[in-house]
Amino acid sequence: MLLMGESINGTRKQVAEAIQNRDAAFIENLAREQVDAGAHVLDVNGGVAGGNEVEDLRWLIDVVRGVTDMQLMVDSASPAALAAGVEACVANGGKVPFINSISGEQSRIDVVLPLIEKHKCPVIGLCLSDEGIPPTAEDRFAVAKRLFELCTGAGLPAEDLWVDPLVLAVSADQAAAGVTMQTLKLVKERLPVRTTGGLSNVSFGLPNRPLLNRTFVAMCAGIGIDGAVLDVRNKEMMAVVRAMEALRGEDNYCGNYLKAHRAGLLE
Amino acid sequence: MLLMGESINGTRKQVAEAIQNRDAAFIENLAREQVDAGAHVLDVNGGVAGGNEVEDLRWLIDVVRGVTDMQLMVDSASPAALAAGVEACVANGGKVPFINSISGEQSRIDVVLPLIEKHKCPVIGLCLSDEGIPPTAEDRFAVAKRLFELCTGAGLPAEDLWVDPLVLAVSADQAAAGVTMQTLKLVKERLPVRTTGGLSNVSFGLPNRPLLNRTFVAMCAGIGIDGAVLDVRNKEMMAVVRAMEALRGEDNYCGNYLKAHRAGLLE
Repeated sequence: MLLMGESINGTRKQVAEAIQNRDAAFIENLAREQVDAGAHVLDVNGGVAGGNEVEDLRWLIDVVRGVTDMQLMVDSASPAALAAGVEACVANGGKVPFINSISGEQSRIDVVLPLIEKHKCPVIGLCLSDEGIPPTAEDRFAVAKRLFELCTGAGLPAEDLWVDPLVLAVSADQAAAGVTMQTLKLVKERLPVRTTGGLSNVSFGLPNRPLLNRTFVAMCAGIGIDGAVLDVRNKEMMAVVRAMEALRGEDNYCGNYLKAHRAGLLE
Repeated sequence: MLLMGESINGTRKQVAEAIQNRDAAFIENLAREQVDAGAHVLDVNGGVAGGNEVEDLRWLIDVVRGVTDMQLMVDSASPAALAAGVEACVANGGKVPFINSISGEQSRIDVVLPLIEKHKCPVIGLCLSDEGIPPTAEDRFAVAKRLFELCTGAGLPAEDLWVDPLVLAVSADQAAAGVTMQTLKLVKERLPVRTTGGLSNVSFGLPNRPLLNRTFVAMCAGIGIDGAVLDVRNKEMMAVVRAMEALRGEDNYCGNYLKAHRAGLLE
């Protein structure tokens, strides 16, 4: 499973402060911790209230690139920041980053599709449109299908579109996780894309959120999710990920599982 | 999810001793603990090396029926014991028990099908035949389909056949859990039966087995498994079950989840 490390995100208070204070050591540490914990891609979001997102994101990306050559994921609600972030990633021979994200919203398509066409960036595709997040799995699938057509039409290989079926809180709607899982099933059955998700919204408003989050990741892994945006530094979550990879046959001779066991990471 | 408590099983050393010594208090305690922990059905297996299984199983069932009227699951490799066990369950107005199990083995079909026809017992259907456990999901599904035809032909409602896709150890075969999950998917898509499994074989030969077992239960829950044979007394396993039920929308207003949280069972 492709592990997308979520921690470098300006919406988190400590990260916002580090961005505002240009505290490179804090960001470098966050990057190293995620690399060491087993991330495959690092999400980088520079959105801080009152900040200059283009400048902040460029600074963040340069700092992270100073300590690792791991592929990054440029994460922003701002068109200008996405474009600047992609350029900052590919400057001086850097790796083409993921874009987080495209969706069925026309304003988003208008901005992101040209970036995909130019750089062939892998991209997260959110199953929402100008009408919002569809309540049914079939309607979310319809958004995924449109994104598949748009992205492949722009020259992106289908496997570089990572569809996120989206999840809302089960505390607010008992059917929320079920719709997400049904959408995931439909996408897996019908489209040659890959799938991922930021799954932790599911537990909003309930106690013991990490238990719900890691159980949901395992449930989605059973359905075949290909990646996840998560806190790779969370030991219990990563223990479930290692177990799940061994169970999906993705871990040769259970090597990573046994290594994690020997390092005391599975208790 | 239907929780089938696995603990009253003569293949376990302490239970074997209790059977041999006719230690009713030990068995009564095992029954009560499982009822209190949330089991819906109690498996009862009286197979002890050197014992008289028919007599032992009758004794076990009488002891368990003395402390709970929960539905039982008569579990035996012996035709005579299965028949005697079913009779002991239904005596004096007791509930019709599950039978554990039928399979595609002809000798098993010959014995169990008449019991199903007579008592309409819900039954676990193992995906194996006289040729052994099929290595592919399609071949396991073929066994499930034959069991579906046989059992419904004997007058059993389809939803009372609980297909077990079987699982072998991932330590011996990296693809083992994948074949189980693929079989589960095929059965869920194509047959109106229900599904269950004794899933803990999956972790045989590996460290931290409970982690693998509960992760696998969650993965199968994502695919839609309807029941599981497990140790309901295991706190971490049951925490995952409560989380999974909330996520599948099977727990009204997350009531059981919140109750378990307040009882300190989710930490």
